[in-house]
Amino acid sequence: MPHALHLIARPLGEPKDSDFELRELAQTDLAEGEIRVAVRYVSVDPAMRIWMTEQKSYWPPVGLGEVMRAGGIGEIVESKHPKLPVGTWVGGMTGVTEEFVTNGKGLRPFDARALPDPTWALHVFGATGFTAYFGLHEIGHPKPGETLVVSAAAGAVGSTVVQLGKAAGCRVIGIAGGAEKCAYVKDLGADAVIDYKNEKVGKALSEACPDGIDVYFDNVGGEILDAVLKRLRLRARIVLCGGISQYNATGLPQGPANYLSLISARARMEGFVVIDYLHRGEEAIAAMAPLVAQGKLKGKVDVIDGLSQFPEALRRLLAGKNFGKQVVQM
Amino acid sequence: MPHALHLIARPLGEPKDSDFELRELAQTDLAEGEIRVAVRYVSVDPAMRIWMTEQKSYWPPVGLGEVMRAGGIGEIVESKHPKLPVGTWVGGMTGVTEEFVTNGKGLRPFDARALPDPTWALHVFGATGFTAYFGLHEIGHPKPGETLVVSAAAGAVGSTVVQLGKAAGCRVIGIAGGAEKCAYVKDLGADAVIDYKNEKVGKALSEACPDGIDVYFDNVGGEILDAVLKRLRLRARIVLCGGISQYNATGLPQGPANYLSLISARARMEGFVVIDYLHRGEEAIAAMAPLVAQGKLKGKVDVIDGLSQFPEALRRLLAGKNFGKQVVQM
Repeated sequence: MPHALHLIARPLGEPKDSDFELRELAQTDLAEGEIRVAVRYVSVDPAMRIWMTEQKSYWPPVGLGEVMRAGGIGEIVESKHPKLPVGTWVGGMTGVTEEFVTNGKGLRPFDARALPDPTWALHVFGATGFTAYFGLHEIGHPKPGETLVVSAAAGAVGSTVVQLGKAAGCRVIGIAGGAEKCAYVKDLGADAVIDYKNEKVGKALSEACPDGIDVYFDNVGGEILDAVLKRLRLRARIVLCGGISQYNATGLPQGPANYLSLISARARMEGFVVIDYLHRGEEAIAAMAPLVAQGKLKGKVDVIDGLSQFPEALRRLLAGKNFGKQVVQM
Repeated sequence: MPHALHLIARPLGEPKDSDFELRELAQTDLAEGEIRVAVRYVSVDPAMRIWMTEQKSYWPPVGLGEVMRAGGIGEIVESKHPKLPVGTWVGGMTGVTEEFVTNGKGLRPFDARALPDPTWALHVFGATGFTAYFGLHEIGHPKPGETLVVSAAAGAVGSTVVQLGKAAGCRVIGIAGGAEKCAYVKDLGADAVIDYKNEKVGKALSEACPDGIDVYFDNVGGEILDAVLKRLRLRARIVLCGGISQYNATGLPQGPANYLSLISARARMEGFVVIDYLHRGEEAIAAMAPLVAQGKLKGKVDVIDGLSQFPEALRRLLAGKNFGKQVVQM
């Protein structure tokens, strides 16, 4: 029997295995117009840590007892839907489950054979890539010759931003943790890389960005955000994509003490959520596909096997131990 | 002999009398093309506290031993300048001095008889009014029917923002300290007033803004900024004008712990400095003069007498003890 993973407790700090429960799915027959989707991969994203709290966010919290929310991709294995035949790949909010029944609403079919690998529909050509593309262009407004700094630069979103920033003509400085990740970011084309685990980020930023920072794509918050705030150029833009360094915090998050630099730099800090741009996904794909074809935009996936490994995959992600887009294969 | 006030020490915490020194001005004769200005009023502004530190800002720090920097207005009492006759009122960066000699560069003459009082060239029709006008309109983009929250709403900038917000068709909520100031803000037309000294700001904001906040004009930072961040509407704009609650801080300022709300609200926080807009001053005056004539835009001035009282005036301002635009009369 297939299983689903339910959230049964709100984690305090790092999510634990016991915050979840594996439950057998009830057997259901399809009604007219319904399909059964076998989920192949689910995406593991920092924002999940927020969905698990009671915090008001762009989506309501996942209710206790509910299947854990997740974006995913899968194949239709049974169909009573006139337009969605068996064998079709679909993507959407599948949840952390091996299988589900739906009328197809909110799912988008895609041609898996047109992708290097179906997981690309979860990273470069999915929500991850859209986050990077729309966050950078719609909020960051990078101009050729400007200096772009990206945190979590070896991560799924960050590594895409690094490459899109180069494609936009920016000088790109990536910040990542550890020699292996830093080498990867350099390979992706970053002009300079800062290893936040082994360097003083402030000093390294001053050296890498002697004239200051025009655009900062922030995935982490915390001390790195503060170090960037001290080094803004006039009219700089900070793209607030996430604050992963604060997501496991049990108290109040660490606010950016240097935020008043936004005044003297006449700078802005702006948040965005990718779901506002999903309807423009084709636009991002059209812009990114040629870069992929030219080898200028690479994707990397970090696969963990098995539904029951989801909590561990999430912990890895929140601790920065993953390398590439973190997914769980069902 | 006239005097000037020199900065001789960088204050730690609240500025002390001993951080300044009154010095006699050397007697100077005018060269061709020069004028002598008798300063009548200097403006006392929160930003002065920053100019007194070694912090990099939009202007360099005031050097130790230099005359304290200040905006001011005065009358030309002696002239060898072909276009600036004796009796002309001028405004500009006069410094905290009773008198100075200049070729007139950077000063703008104004018609004091056209104003209710010459001090209006320092508040509504000067840098204070321009700060309110351009900050609100160029950064805040208020739309009719939106909810605007203003902190330090009884202050010089804040009280102008309250009135300009009403003129722009917003619901305006002012935050001020103490019953007298709150009554004044209400009199200016605010739809609701919150007394931060006697109310819980978060709870009061929830009541006054049940649908959230569209624009926040922030003069104070600290806990009030955090309370607002928790209550943003979608696509809210935070106008960062100042952070007076943090200016006397001896350690790092208190960063806004709730800044990640900018993500879920797709909101922005943006800083600005009025000097970028001074060349557009006539535009602000043209927009505000009819409001003044209709009684919809009132100014209030808090005059302290004597050059030597400048440190006390600055302390009053930083502690929120002033009521209206704080100026020192020479």
